[in-house]
Amino acid sequence: MTLGRADLEALDAADPLAPFRDEFALPEGVLYLDGNSLGALPRATPARLARLVQEEWGRDLIRSWNTAGWIDLPRRVGEAIAPVVGAGPGQVIAADSTSVNLFKLAAAAVGMRPGRRVILSEPGNFPTDLYVLQGLAELLGDRVELVLAERHELADALDGDVALLLLTHVHYKTGRVHDLPGLTAAAHAAGALTLWDLSHSAGALEVGLDAAGADFAVGCGYKYLNGGPGAPAWLYVAQRHQDQVRPPLAGWMGHAAPFAFEDRFRPADGMARQLCGTPGILGMAALEEGVRIVARADRARLREKSRRMGDLFLALVAEQCGPDTFALACPADGAERGSQVSLSHPEGYAIIQALIARGVIGDFRAPDILRFGFAPLYLRYTDIWDAVVHLAAVMRDGEWQADRFRQRAAVT
Amino acid sequence: MTLGRADLEALDAADPLAPFRDEFALPEGVLYLDGNSLGALPRATPARLARLVQEEWGRDLIRSWNTAGWIDLPRRVGEAIAPVVGAGPGQVIAADSTSVNLFKLAAAAVGMRPGRRVILSEPGNFPTDLYVLQGLAELLGDRVELVLAERHELADALDGDVALLLLTHVHYKTGRVHDLPGLTAAAHAAGALTLWDLSHSAGALEVGLDAAGADFAVGCGYKYLNGGPGAPAWLYVAQRHQDQVRPPLAGWMGHAAPFAFEDRFRPADGMARQLCGTPGILGMAALEEGVRIVARADRARLREKSRRMGDLFLALVAEQCGPDTFALACPADGAERGSQVSLSHPEGYAIIQALIARGVIGDFRAPDILRFGFAPLYLRYTDIWDAVVHLAAVMRDGEWQADRFRQRAAVT
Repeated sequence: MTLGRADLEALDAADPLAPFRDEFALPEGVLYLDGNSLGALPRATPARLARLVQEEWGRDLIRSWNTAGWIDLPRRVGEAIAPVVGAGPGQVIAADSTSVNLFKLAAAAVGMRPGRRVILSEPGNFPTDLYVLQGLAELLGDRVELVLAERHELADALDGDVALLLLTHVHYKTGRVHDLPGLTAAAHAAGALTLWDLSHSAGALEVGLDAAGADFAVGCGYKYLNGGPGAPAWLYVAQRHQDQVRPPLAGWMGHAAPFAFEDRFRPADGMARQLCGTPGILGMAALEEGVRIVARADRARLREKSRRMGDLFLALVAEQCGPDTFALACPADGAERGSQVSLSHPEGYAIIQALIARGVIGDFRAPDILRFGFAPLYLRYTDIWDAVVHLAAVMRDGEWQADRFRQRAAVT
Repeated sequence: MTLGRADLEALDAADPLAPFRDEFALPEGVLYLDGNSLGALPRATPARLARLVQEEWGRDLIRSWNTAGWIDLPRRVGEAIAPVVGAGPGQVIAADSTSVNLFKLAAAAVGMRPGRRVILSEPGNFPTDLYVLQGLAELLGDRVELVLAERHELADALDGDVALLLLTHVHYKTGRVHDLPGLTAAAHAAGALTLWDLSHSAGALEVGLDAAGADFAVGCGYKYLNGGPGAPAWLYVAQRHQDQVRPPLAGWMGHAAPFAFEDRFRPADGMARQLCGTPGILGMAALEEGVRIVARADRARLREKSRRMGDLFLALVAEQCGPDTFALACPADGAERGSQVSLSHPEGYAIIQALIARGVIGDFRAPDILRFGFAPLYLRYTDIWDAVVHLAAVMRDGEWQADRFRQRAAVT
């Protein structure tokens, strides 16, 4: 099969998600294949923030905690995220960062499985997931340790000493998807709890936390949820666990009556105890705008479009760049892949910089991964075509060999 | 002495800080005596945020982590805060919330004093300070406990079992100021470390962390630093301790090389290891604008003006409301008081609501405290006069007795 641009134009014309693109303020001349790192700006966000800043903060000042509903934002944003990850109401709240939320829930899980001392994860998991567990283990002395097992050995490693299985659903580098229901069931069969990092899933894949009987989950707000740079994160606690979870980060916003100013911590009912300090309202409001759009999209369609985009990208790269230019660093089968593809090349960093100079924005992950994310809400199939045309041109002429593309910036 | 409004007009005319008022967008018809809860909006902030959202996020997207310096914001904001709290460079960074930062540093301090099991604080300290320590103690099992001693008993309670003395410099309810240098020296003499919560100090009082030989400090960004609702907080670690502090919240932004994506946590040098997850950029940028203004003001003048405003307010209340209408709930001596005064009255909640209805915004703290904050950067002496005229009118006619002023909102 040889594809032409007209084939992709036809897909765009028939795409039921196409109208969502108009809800984003995408810059001219840019093909943005990095929505998996920072989602695009929703058109509604600048006006929301301007109103928040000038009217709610500037004019109404402290009163806005009540009158503009600031105090309720973490709960409201959480409830909007819940259906996006397959959770019924009352189980998701927006708070803190993904890292802080991982700490909260990992510490709580260890407390719920006294006598078990292992937190199980896999090597190469997103660094913050591993670091947070290392920090927790160090803090708790010898009460808990982090054990890493390769993917195919995880099921065997689920023995009676495992308190918690912590995995990232879609691997940030390879895009490979874990079998969330299967591993959750395996963990439960071994008496362990599960904590899923859905940072690369929420808003792009169907997740189904409730259906899988998951225990805990966290995720970030700035990727497919379009909440802006460093947006607040969120966390999920299955209803059945909520009253057992003692918050290790017992900040005043998680108190049953924060404005009673008692000396003794009494955790709030339900998800509210998962709050810690005062929430950042600017970030929460921006996240609410981003989530509002995602929550309206049909999740099966999102998943189908993102898989098809990945398949097309890989097919076009093979056709236009030649089959041996890049090694495949993600599953070839779309069913095993999240909403991104990864290629490897020893000069990956410089190639990505050369692409960015052409307005095609992907990103690079050390040591040699070129990563292309497909945000199905606002990408067109023709964007995939055009991006590959640029990639082929960069490779054909060795454009990436210019010195300016080899200088590393602080953030890669 | 009987004061007239003309006396306060004369003070305004001679006030060297008066020009700072123009840097804030204060609403018409409002006398804002709650800058100690939420600082007013700096005029520069809306444009800064609009540029950040539309150009840095919307147009430049992921590239802005480098090109707009997002990655450097926590350090830059921290360095701007440093002189405001009397800290030399390289010791302050903006991150997370006050609550999360309290946890980080309290946990680190306990680790630096092995064998000692007491964290000492005072009853009635700001709730989150106590709750965070209770959460930490519960997490660590019997390795550490929170002990509370009344102010006048703190020095005696500093025995060889105390690992850390944690106090809020200016009490949120009474406004009473602790002797930061004296208590720091007493703690050190007992072999303990100190952690100061400067939420009600930074930007209103002279602090002098380095001069006092303080160990650790935290503070919030949304009061006198004018960073907006739920602004990021900040933390201070004295240079001499920085390499000993193992972050218990080991997020990827605190790694020596976050973009190397290693499996093993290696803390960054200096303050960068105090970062945890990805920082919220909207909040950081707003905080930078707020801090920029405070950092330019002479701190001795800020302190002098805020003391004088408190003294005048108390004198005017006695004159205009009568000496027995309110009980004094803060020190009468301005030298012992932060930048607020507190009165008590059994009907405090309703009185504050009646004042707010007149556009005079103070706040209420259970069970009976009326709290009036004086942000010396943007308040005028005549505002003090006018506020007391309103308070006297509310009391004279029993205006607060209306039913609508007795209904409690979620946030008080």
